[in-house]
Order: sequence, then structure tokens, then C-alpha cells
Amino acid sequence: MRPEELGGGSGSVVGGGSGSVVGGGIPAPSTELTTTPPDFPTMWRELRPVGRYSGTGGYRRFAWTGADAECRAWFAEQARRRGLVHEVDRNGNQWAWLGDPAQGDAVVTGSHLDSVPDGGAFDGPLGVVSAFAALDELRARGARFTKPVGIVNFGDEEGARFGLACVGSRLSAGQLTAAQAHRLTGADGVTLPRAMEAAGYDPDAIGPDPERLGRIGAFVELHVEQGRALDLTGDRLGVASAIWPHGRWRFDFRGEANHAGTTRLADRRDPMLSYAETVLAARQRARLAGAVATFGKISVEPNGVNAVPSLVRGWLDSRAADQATLDTVVTGVEEAARAYAEAHGVRLDVVRESFTPVVEFDHALRDELARILGGGTAELTVPVLGTGAGHDAGILSGTVPTAMLFVRNPTGVSHSPAEYATEDDCVAGVTALADVLEGLACR
Amino acid sequence: MRPEELGGGSGSVVGGGSGSVVGGGIPAPSTELTTTPPDFPTMWRELRPVGRYSGTGGYRRFAWTGADAECRAWFAEQARRRGLVHEVDRNGNQWAWLGDPAQGDAVVTGSHLDSVPDGGAFDGPLGVVSAFAALDELRARGARFTKPVGIVNFGDEEGARFGLACVGSRLSAGQLTAAQAHRLTGADGVTLPRAMEAAGYDPDAIGPDPERLGRIGAFVELHVEQGRALDLTGDRLGVASAIWPHGRWRFDFRGEANHAGTTRLADRRDPMLSYAETVLAARQRARLAGAVATFGKISVEPNGVNAVPSLVRGWLDSRAADQATLDTVVTGVEEAARAYAEAHGVRLDVVRESFTPVVEFDHALRDELARILGGGTAELTVPVLGTGAGHDAGILSGTVPTAMLFVRNPTGVSHSPAEYATEDDCVAGVTALADVLEGLACR
Repeated sequence: MRPEELGGGSGSVVGGGSGSVVGGGIPAPSTELTTTPPDFPTMWRELRPVGRYSGTGGYRRFAWTGADAECRAWFAEQARRRGLVHEVDRNGNQWAWLGDPAQGDAVVTGSHLDSVPDGGAFDGPLGVVSAFAALDELRARGARFTKPVGIVNFGDEEGARFGLACVGSRLSAGQLTAAQAHRLTGADGVTLPRAMEAAGYDPDAIGPDPERLGRIGAFVELHVEQGRALDLTGDRLGVASAIWPHGRWRFDFRGEANHAGTTRLADRRDPMLSYAETVLAARQRARLAGAVATFGKISVEPNGVNAVPSLVRGWLDSRAADQATLDTVVTGVEEAARAYAEAHGVRLDVVRESFTPVVEFDHALRDELARILGGGTAELTVPVLGTGAGHDAGILSGTVPTAMLFVRNPTGVSHSPAEYATEDDCVAGVTALADVLEGLACR
Repeated sequence: MRPEELGGGSGSVVGGGSGSVVGGGIPAPSTELTTTPPDFPTMWRELRPVGRYSGTGGYRRFAWTGADAECRAWFAEQARRRGLVHEVDRNGNQWAWLGDPAQGDAVVTGSHLDSVPDGGAFDGPLGVVSAFAALDELRARGARFTKPVGIVNFGDEEGARFGLACVGSRLSAGQLTAAQAHRLTGADGVTLPRAMEAAGYDPDAIGPDPERLGRIGAFVELHVEQGRALDLTGDRLGVASAIWPHGRWRFDFRGEANHAGTTRLADRRDPMLSYAETVLAARQRARLAGAVATFGKISVEPNGVNAVPSLVRGWLDSRAADQATLDTVVTGVEEAARAYAEAHGVRLDVVRESFTPVVEFDHALRDELARILGGGTAELTVPVLGTGAGHDAGILSGTVPTAMLFVRNPTGVSHSPAEYATEDDCVAGVTALADVLEGLACR
């Protein structure tokens, strides 16, 4: 089939917003293009204004919002301009296919386009934009593909809206049930199913997708590094070894609302004090254990300047290189918090909202990546790094051989408008990803 | 003029929502009524559901909202049912007059009907309901008024929406300029002028009202006590001596947003840590000084579970019996906060958002109240209390001889749904207020 037979250049068989599932039998487009698709800087420029909040310069691309829809439309358009077949799976994840995935043993790359509140430009989008750019580079090299190649945009990776990360990949991998997902509710009171509906998707269709994932032979996610390890060793690129075990715990400190001017200190049951003590305890215990622990989100009631709070709700995010260390940190913080709460006449409830065990990426695939990036030598020429960040790659790793490529982050800053990678490093990332895809899909 | 000449029982010459000013020349209604107005329990029952949030059982009666409008309509209706002349001044404060205020030397009582977030039923409304009930009792006694008597509902006393307390009385007393008020903005981004407009009031009309305040010879505000002083001494009622100097300071801790999983602790500039340390320092310094200090309101950016915050904004409310003590506490907290911020690489800005110096209530009026409540003896039979809470009475005290009556609060809890006073104590409060009005306005 020639590209023009795809019908006016539209490779989309399932439009964004339908949420319908497309099974096998997708026609394989040609590897040749008659027009030149947008290059990396152009794609980057197109995405730049979408969901950007001028007040902070950060991104607010939350699942199933208008900004998310714009990102999705952009993805579909990239597929169309490259003659790829665009489909949206039952969980709202977007796919762009070169070749027929029903053939199996597909090589997939990609990441996500959503963001944390006031996030940076790179976390997620770098992996998606690099995927399209790497495919363009392979076509320019005249690569002959022996396997189907897919580019994916997983939905709701950051969990900024509903508090649970990697919703799209978790659903597909069967790590989150439809019933559990239906109960997810955002701070505005809108549930995930209502949000999906409002965006034009069918929440009743969500669920596991073993057939689709079963066609994938390898998934490689390129991502900006979220620390300074590569910067410290002077390397542009790295390969992931493992994702640290990590979780989120909600600490509800319940005291008694009271007048801030007239209530004697001795008569108060002020939950802000226990919260403050717990924040400091978390930092100390993480430091001693070589782990990380963060209280970055808080909700206070009634949150009035002249009122002692009735409720301070704080969220602990903690991660460590191994499970035992993480348990030590979190148990220690919880014990300290209970003692503080009791001393102030405050009730404490701790709820584990999410947890992801350690993820070891596929060793064979990791070694293959190192071999490809090392130009065929058996020696590792790129660093292999552990990471404290969760990723869709981590979710998929239980089902599919999975690897990650990291691009150097000179400041280590991420989840912030200041998140950054140099253009040279991004270009190196695209070339490396093209090499990896060629090594995996053209052999 | 007989009541029926007021036209269908409507004593309102300025409807709620017009915001127009009514000058002198208000006709004096009769002190006799042909119908029985609602008694204290009935008024209490009528107000009970207005602006009550079922989730907490607390009140959300914020300035210029629908709940506020319902309270205002209720006030106007109480005036109407008693044949009182209802007017709304240029700043949205409501007045109900028996007799012609233009006569001067008027005796005014009342309080406010708005609330803090999830506030109690008593703070404010008890003073307004008791005012109507006391007037009813005086009429039942056949009291002969020699001076005009007014009942007032001051607008936006709690400052829950725009962050500044006593906006209505401050404007009238010239302690807040129209230009300053026009810049007040709520958390939802709505400015005070837009909120007034939306409620049907004219924000361009606001400003000082010396003529109206000049006609008042004495203002007595009845209020539920907001501490346990009366409970500890076993007294139903008390008289205020002074309002402690008090203020609000905003502490902006600015760090750097970052990924909570991947950023090494050593690479962080986490403002939550400095905030937590400052919360604990404030408590300690207030305790040592015999003052109060509270961090009850916080705003965090980006407020994501997996993000180190870029900004933690905390509000300090502090009060002490005298200015020197308050200065010591606040200066100490600020110095500690600066040291904490510097240690974490965090920038700190401290802004004093409001400040009210010590208010000594009028000694002659206070002694007069004590004499009246003591049945004519020179000896004090009720306790005289200082208070840490700001009130419209405190604002007016710079312009008008002002006093306050406190009704016992058995738990001391206020600014909370658990705020409470017994019915017997409320009834005692109404009788005392009636005695005071009779003593001041019928001599």
C-alpha cells in the first residue's frame, strides 16, 4: 500500500475522543514518505504553548482536560503526517504504528504528554517527540524494518489529577482494575469516569488489554534524567537498571478548629504542630537511611488565618533503593507522627494511597541497548542508573521486556518549570533511540 | 406615626442590594407593635440553616455570597416585622432604627452575620439576634426611649473571603480607604469590588461615613466569649476591658520545585522544611511570652504529591496582651524563619498583611455597664476581660464610645462548628443587653 492510499494522509482509524478499541488487521503503511514531517525543533515548538501557565511558566497538562486534548490532537497529527496508523486503546492510550502490530514482536517507544502541576517541558514529551524524530531519522537512513514499530502516548502518567500515577499503563497491564479506576476522584470532586466522559471517552470500556501488550516484543522509554547522576559523570546518556520501590502515604492529622486569637495554647489541639514535626522527622529519617522522603502536598481545613485548623492532611512520598530501607523510613516516620499527634491531642490516620515495588528492568534488553549504544562492543559505554521516579516503563516491565534511556539533565531539576536538557543532548538522545530501534526492529 | 403608616409593615427605605446611602430625616416608628415579632428561639431557628455546610456542620457565610445575601434578607425582614427603619450604608453595613438617628446620641447594638470558613453558629449572629430580642424585651417592659436605638449588622467582619477582617466597619471609620478595599482579592481571584457588584452593591460608593458614626453616642456589642475565662470563674456574663494588639503576617518561603523521587536531599531547596521549623518556633516563642501565635492557613505550589514545593506560603496570626510582647514574639519568629530559610537555600519574604493596635474600651461606658448589670451598685459584679479577638467594636472604639458584653462559652471553642453557649446563658445575655439599652437609652 502506498501512503496516498491511506486516504488524504489521515492514518487515523480511531479518532481521538472515541476511546474505542481497534483490534488486529491494521494495514501496514509504507516506510517511505512523500512529504517531510516536522523535525525535532518544530515539534518542540508546536508543543511548547500547550497547557503552559504564564503565571509560573510551568505546564498544567492534566488528564482529560483541554490541555490534554490538545496534546492528544498533536500526537494524532504527528501520526497522520508520517502516514502512521493512529489508534486509541480502551484506556485512552494513543498509539501510532508503522507496520502491522498484529504481526507481533513489535518494538515500541514513547512516553507520556501529561504533566505534574507546573511541571517542566521535558518530562514525558521528550520521549514522545524523540520517538517521532528517531523514526524520521531511521527512514532517512533508509532502514528496512523487519518488525512493526509503535510510538505510544500513555494517558495520565503523572497522576496529577486523580492522585494515582500511570493510570493508562496500569489499566492496560491489569495492575489497576476498572472498578478501582472508577473510584478515583480529583480535588474538584470530579471522578475519573466523569472526566473521561467529558473528554469524549467511554469509561465503561476501560480495563486490561493483554492482547495489545502481548504483541509488544520490546518497549523502550526515553526520558530526561530526573537527577544529576549523568551530569556528575559527564555522560550525555544512560540506561536504567531499576526503579526504586516507592509509594504515597496520606497522613490525616485531626485536631479541633478554634479561634486563633482567644484559645489558650494549653487548650488547643492543633494538628499543624504535629504535621510540622512529622515533616522534619521524615527528612531526618530519609537522610539517615540514604532514601528520599517528601511532604509536597497539603490540604488544611478550615484554612483560615485566624483559625486553629481542624484537619491537616499531608502526603508523604518516599522512595529507597530497596524495600527494607523504604519500610524502615516509612515505619519510622509513622511512629514519630503518632507520638507527636498523641502529645498534641490530635488523631492520626495514615493511609497508603499507592505503592510500587522495586522494578528491575529486563537484563537482556538492557545489555542489548548497551551493546547497540557501544557500537557493538561487549563493554558498557554508557552508565547504568537506578532511578527514584516511577514510569510507564516500570508498569509494563511486568508484562513486556522493557528498558529506559535517560538524557542528561544538567541541573537535575525536574517536575518544575526549570527542568532542562541541552539541545545537543536531546539530539544525542534521538540518535541513540534511532540506533536502538534500528538494532531491535531491523535485524 | 403609627406602625401601619409605614406601609404594609415594610420599614425598609433602602432595600438590600442598593448600597445607597440614606441620610437624616428617617421617620421615627412607634415603640408599640401591633404584631408579635419572632422570639429568640424562632430567630435562631430561622438563621440556623443559612450557609451551613453539611459536610462539617460549620458555616460558610462569606461576604457578598448567596449565604451572606440570605443573612441580609433575614436582617431586613426582622427590621420590617418590628416596624424598624431598615437602611444599608455606603459600605454595605445594615442598620435597623427605632427613632430618628439624626437626633444624635443614638444607642446602637449588634454585631455581624458572616462567618469564618466552617465557623460556629454564635460568633456574630448571637449579637444580632440578641439585639432584636433585647429590643423586644424592652418593648414588653413598656420602656420609654429618650434616644434613638439602632441595631447593626456589619459587613465582612471575619475577612474570610478577602483576608482582611472588619472591612465594613473599617471603611466607615476611615481605617481602610476605598482604594485599599478595591485591591482586596479572594483566593478565587475575584476582587472585592467585583464581588460587591455581583451581589448588587455599588463598590464605587464605599468610603468613610463620619456623619453616620457621629450620630452614635454608644455602641455595645454582645458576643459569645471565645475563650474559657467566664467558664473558669463560673460567670454567665462579662464585660470587655481591651482587645489585644494583633496582626497577620504572610511568610513566603520560596525554594525550587523538583521531583520528589529523584532529587537528592542535598540538592533540594525545599521550602516545606523551613515552614515546618517556623511553625514550631512560633509556638515556642508564643508560649514563652504568654502570647498566642498560629499558622492556620497555608498555600503550597505546585502542591503535588511527587514534587518538592517551589513555594510554601504560611500565614502567622499572633496576639499578645501588650504591644511590646507582640513585637518580641513576631520579631523572634521572623528571625528564626530567616535562619531556617537560609540553611535550606530558601528565600523568605515576610509581609504584614494587617495590624490592629491594642484597643482600650471606653472606661466610662464600661463602668456604666458594670453599674447597670450590678443593679445600681458601684461594685463590679461581672468580670472584666481582655480578649485576643478583633471585633467591629474595636474598630469603632476610636470614633465612638464602645463596650462589649461577653456570654459564657463552656468549652471556649470558637471559629468551629463546636462553638457553643447554653440557652440559659443566651437568655441571660439578652436580659443584660436589654438592661444596658434601657439604662443608656431611656434615662
